[in-house]
Amino acid sequence: MVRRTVDLRSDTVTKPSDVMRAAMAGAEVEDDVLGFDPTARKLEEEMTRMTGKEAALFVPSGTMGNLISVLVHCEVRGSEAILGDNSHIHIYENGGISTIGGVHAKTVKNNHDGTMDLALIRAAIRHPDEELYFPTTRLICLENTHANSGGRCISGEYTDQVGLIAKEHGLKLHIDGARIFNASAALGVPVQRLVQAADSVSICLSKGVGAPVGSVIVGSKSFISKARRLRKTLGGGMRQVGVLCAAALVGLRDHAGRLQDDHRRAKIFTEGLRQIKQLKVDAESVETNMIFFELKESLKSSPEVFCEILQEQGVLALPTSDTCVRVVLHHQISDSDVSYALGSIKRAVAQIAGEVDQ
Amino acid sequence: MVRRTVDLRSDTVTKPSDVMRAAMAGAEVEDDVLGFDPTARKLEEEMTRMTGKEAALFVPSGTMGNLISVLVHCEVRGSEAILGDNSHIHIYENGGISTIGGVHAKTVKNNHDGTMDLALIRAAIRHPDEELYFPTTRLICLENTHANSGGRCISGEYTDQVGLIAKEHGLKLHIDGARIFNASAALGVPVQRLVQAADSVSICLSKGVGAPVGSVIVGSKSFISKARRLRKTLGGGMRQVGVLCAAALVGLRDHAGRLQDDHRRAKIFTEGLRQIKQLKVDAESVETNMIFFELKESLKSSPEVFCEILQEQGVLALPTSDTCVRVVLHHQISDSDVSYALGSIKRAVAQIAGEVDQ
Amino acid sequence: MVRRTVDLRSDTVTKPSDVMRAAMAGAEVEDDVLGFDPTARKLEEEMTRMTGKEAALFVPSGTMGNLISVLVHCEVRGSEAILGDNSHIHIYENGGISTIGGVHAKTVKNNHDGTMDLALIRAAIRHPDEELYFPTTRLICLENTHANSGGRCISGEYTDQVGLIAKEHGLKLHIDGARIFNASAALGVPVQRLVQAADSVSICLSKGVGAPVGSVIVGSKSFISKARRLRKTLGGGMRQVGVLCAAALVGLRDHAGRLQDDHRRAKIFTEGLRQIKQLKVDAESVETNMIFFELKESLKSSPEVFCEILQEQGVLALPTSDTCVRVVLHHQISDSDVSYALGSIKRAVAQIAGEVDQ
Amino acid sequence: MVRRTVDLRSDTVTKPSDVMRAAMAGAEVEDDVLGFDPTARKLEEEMTRMTGKEAALFVPSGTMGNLISVLVHCEVRGSEAILGDNSHIHIYENGGISTIGGVHAKTVKNNHDGTMDLALIRAAIRHPDEELYFPTTRLICLENTHANSGGRCISGEYTDQVGLIAKEHGLKLHIDGARIFNASAALGVPVQRLVQAADSVSICLSKGVGAPVGSVIVGSKSFISKARRLRKTLGGGMRQVGVLCAAALVGLRDHAGRLQDDHRRAKIFTEGLRQIKQLKVDAESVETNMIFFELKESLKSSPEVFCEILQEQGVLALPTSDTCVRVVLHHQISDSDVSYALGSIKRAVAQIAGEVDQ
Repeated sequence: MVRRTVDLRSDTVTKPSDVMRAAMAGAEVEDDVLGFDPTARKLEEEMTRMTGKEAALFVPSGTMGNLISVLVHCEVRGSEAILGDNSHIHIYENGGISTIGGVHAKTVKNNHDGTMDLALIRAAIRHPDEELYFPTTRLICLENTHANSGGRCISGEYTDQVGLIAKEHGLKLHIDGARIFNASAALGVPVQRLVQAADSVSICLSKGVGAPVGSVIVGSKSFISKARRLRKTLGGGMRQVGVLCAAALVGLRDHAGRLQDDHRRAKIFTEGLRQIKQLKVDAESVETNMIFFELKESLKSSPEVFCEILQEQGVLALPTSDTCVRVVLHHQISDSDVSYALGSIKRAVAQIAGEVDQ
Repeated sequence: MVRRTVDLRSDTVTKPSDVMRAAMAGAEVEDDVLGFDPTARKLEEEMTRMTGKEAALFVPSGTMGNLISVLVHCEVRGSEAILGDNSHIHIYENGGISTIGGVHAKTVKNNHDGTMDLALIRAAIRHPDEELYFPTTRLICLENTHANSGGRCISGEYTDQVGLIAKEHGLKLHIDGARIFNASAALGVPVQRLVQAADSVSICLSKGVGAPVGSVIVGSKSFISKARRLRKTLGGGMRQVGVLCAAALVGLRDHAGRLQDDHRRAKIFTEGLRQIKQLKVDAESVETNMIFFELKESLKSSPEVFCEILQEQGVLALPTSDTCVRVVLHHQISDSDVSYALGSIKRAVAQIAGEVDQ
Repeated sequence: MVRRTVDLRSDTVTKPSDVMRAAMAGAEVEDDVLGFDPTARKLEEEMTRMTGKEAALFVPSGTMGNLISVLVHCEVRGSEAILGDNSHIHIYENGGISTIGGVHAKTVKNNHDGTMDLALIRAAIRHPDEELYFPTTRLICLENTHANSGGRCISGEYTDQVGLIAKEHGLKLHIDGARIFNASAALGVPVQRLVQAADSVSICLSKGVGAPVGSVIVGSKSFISKARRLRKTLGGGMRQVGVLCAAALVGLRDHAGRLQDDHRRAKIFTEGLRQIKQLKVDAESVETNMIFFELKESLKSSPEVFCEILQEQGVLALPTSDTCVRVVLHHQISDSDVSYALGSIKRAVAQIAGEVDQ
Repeated sequence: MVRRTVDLRSDTVTKPSDVMRAAMAGAEVEDDVLGFDPTARKLEEEMTRMTGKEAALFVPSGTMGNLISVLVHCEVRGSEAILGDNSHIHIYENGGISTIGGVHAKTVKNNHDGTMDLALIRAAIRHPDEELYFPTTRLICLENTHANSGGRCISGEYTDQVGLIAKEHGLKLHIDGARIFNASAALGVPVQRLVQAADSVSICLSKGVGAPVGSVIVGSKSFISKARRLRKTLGGGMRQVGVLCAAALVGLRDHAGRLQDDHRRAKIFTEGLRQIKQLKVDAESVETNMIFFELKESLKSSPEVFCEILQEQGVLALPTSDTCVRVVLHHQISDSDVSYALGSIKRAVAQIAGEVDQ
């Protein structure tokens, strides 16, 4: 019998709180396609304010937020976007910027901290003199926090430098800020500061913020006007969408400001993992709510098998490579859940090791 | 002072009922991207059952439902889809099947009843012998009810004949069934019968069904499997989407079966409009919940001006051409609302006519 | 034994003359991708002069000429082009503007003379107020002469009117002038006058001009600069292309000015066909070098069978529908060839009629 | 006064020989779009034979050859191609596979010898289990010789290994064989052997073969059938194209077998460059007809300035980066030209060094 479930697969798995549910039930709504839903507008205004941009737009998902942003900046056929070779857009979004948008992807190596060397970014920008052979670079994309680097934070200073390169070459800068609230909490710097140099940002509301559905993109009025139209084209325009936005507004109020709790628990969790000699975890890379740990070869197990054993104890985690497991903290994981999960992991290791010893 | 608002712009404007709101607040949910949300699954199973297809998928909008369907059937570069020149997909969906999907549109003239002549459909199919010069026809699209024809119903028999043509030529048949429940109610024929010949159907839940957000597409398991992936690519995958599906399930239970009330009121409304000599309305075309009426030239007014005058009295309607106004009935329009709207229209006509007489 | 071949399938079948062959053999050439081939430049300058435009570009085919032109004018994602429902671009070019370029096709009915009603063109232009639902109209395409209308000529006056509509709405006007030299010869009006209102023209050199390969597009310097780049992207940039351009220059000098001979012969041919009572031909539609004739039902034959019988006598013609055969005149068809072909057609009719009578 | 021109910019700059010109002038031709041009067919059959594939197709350029090949293998929306990060397709072909074809590019690091580590290729293949998030890998591309690696040869054994990986995963293998004849000559291995594992190869006829225009792609009958259609869509179908193919046939006969002369001269050239202490050249990388040399920092010059000085002496070379100059040998560069060019380079270095010393 499983006493409890501790779902650490992602911070997207949170279920709406009672307050959120009440807010959804009571939301004031209109047809947001025909005009403007008042709750959507309220959310969009709140996000505009928090990011210091001119305008905002609610979209069904972070994937659509990124897709729309890249496609609006690259609206002319023959465009190229520079992005990290380990970025979410490049790896986990179906290649949609190319397969749906016809944008050519030019990848630059992501460093372990999620940044890309400025010199490599500069080198990746196509020279207009050779335009006969080249696509036209129009966009640079950053990701903050950078998921595949362990949720590490990109500083405002670094972002500014990339923004400067973009400006020098007449390019736009987009930030995939799915977890920008985590970066803000970990760095102790307002979101607005982190995205100051960006022409657009996509921010997820169903991760740290805990809303059931949705992301918001922010940018200039002209950008959002084009984004609204493209949202309609892609089928992301929704009718009485205020029911979703109401939940997101609660999340912004109740959860966005408390992400340091998740980060604190992630550090405790990491410390616990470090005590288990068959596992390997890079404590330095745990800056926010994500932890990637490796099964040492000596354990002679695979992440798939390991996660199945954990699941029997109600602990859910994600295998992410041949050796690596990912756990993500969120507001529905308590200190006690962390203890329980650590205990389960120890038992799983012991069980596997025992089997191996036999 | 406006005593009340009678919103006849579209059947998409309905606000969620209290029961729906309660259902949203209480919905059982999971991360529908990582796995399956139980409420989404319940809705999808219900739609599978109602349409007699193998599988179903919830999507954020009818536009996405149609876009995904066309793109899945036309997954190979160089495809062409046959569709009505007055169809919603061709006119109101941003040309997305071409601009996003690269599908070539081959239009066939829509008759006044929303059908296309079978001979014209046959003639539009590209002959494989000339494939060197031609795109490849892969799909025929119907729309039921057909909005721009006044919401007229397409019979199951006609649909079967088109399905037969499709089969003969190895094509697929997609039905834009945004208002298929209205067709079902008006014809007294189950949805399943109407879509029997179709390989896919897109059905709107935020129109007659009254849900705040969403559509469902149905088809074979293989079709839905590809559709799920494309939904993710387009950014239509949503997390705890059960909150929306819960509302839709209430709508299916409470509203889908009562659309004949809307149709009855549409006929009363039409009769009332016919009494106003400065207006022209084709009573025969009013088969469901939509009414298009024309301002006669003698009125010397425009739909824009006319609708603005109506709006002052709280009656909202949509100008749809240089001479035409559209009103749409839905479950939040009562008999009394119809009387009130008719009265307002009479007053608007009188006011304009009076101004003209002066 | 076939004494001779009279190839009337198309004016693209001409073989390079001895003078052309000599010109190819002696052509001065350079690498036209790295820089500019002198003979290509000479041809492009000649075409610039003849059309009164700023710049020109040699491309491998008329299909590429049209594709590049439409795609340059519609370089922003979400574009729509208005074009005739019976136009070459819409029917015979694989739907490439959509399947390769993502441009949405908005067709307008072609009249029998190849024009489109101005009112229908105006009505097809999308209203910017509804841009949330619509693609953006950016281009109108004409075709002169209009092949599927029997090679009929579009007048400069009509073209100007369409150009005016384009200008009023901020659109571009492209002319598929594959056979613009025929229109010029038949109307007795310089090419420059016929394309005065156009932003771009695609002109075939392998039809009336008799060159073995190639088309030229003309337009503004900015248009041609973008076209050159897109030509490279599509793979139409060629190295020592002067060998082809040299042949085209001969054709421009020797054949372009003598197309009225083809037209005169087409009229003689038509008159001959009119004498054969089992055939039907609309003499009025024969304005240039194309003739479409129908097999009357009484003949009880099909164009395929009919053309096969003709082929046995060395006369090649193209079936173009269930009832229709196309013949096209060109500089390698003499008066004697016309007589021979007419004789062969009479014999074919007699043979079939005889079989039917038996 | 410039006594002579030695054009070392590329092997594409060769001018057709007198024999080629005569062959063009005398070519037997037909309309290759309507049917088959006999000389084109002859060339295609010759290439079929040389490569050991089922069928071949003449195209206007190597860019189109690669574009068509990638697009045919990736004909289903949502495809990804694996290719070298320093490959011609990725860098110099305008990103066309994405911007025209919607194919997502997945780059793998090119080693100095033009290969990619097999382990990296394997790692780049998307796992079907994650298809909800991933595009579908369908193709691996190699380039032989690999231009940006200095024209180095890819062995048949390596190619076989990549082919094996492709087969294991149900992928196709395309070889950009623009200079496959050079690889064949340098390795002493027939072309057929080098491309044995490939599903398609694009081979340039306007480089080592010396033809004025064109490339050929080879593959299975089914591949070429689709390629022919796509060639038409892109506008690469040409009429009496035999005039070009006749030149290519001469090149195949007269030049393709003598490329070792170019390679021998490239080695002599390299040896000469090594004697100039202000230049740096990696002799080992000169396996075929390309030489990249660097201006040492001590020279305090730039490739642009350096090439301008050379040009004054009639020697043409291409700057390819901030420090690097490229020279390419071909059949119109004699031993004497090599001496002359080396002399000019020495003089240029001396002149710059002299200026620097002053």
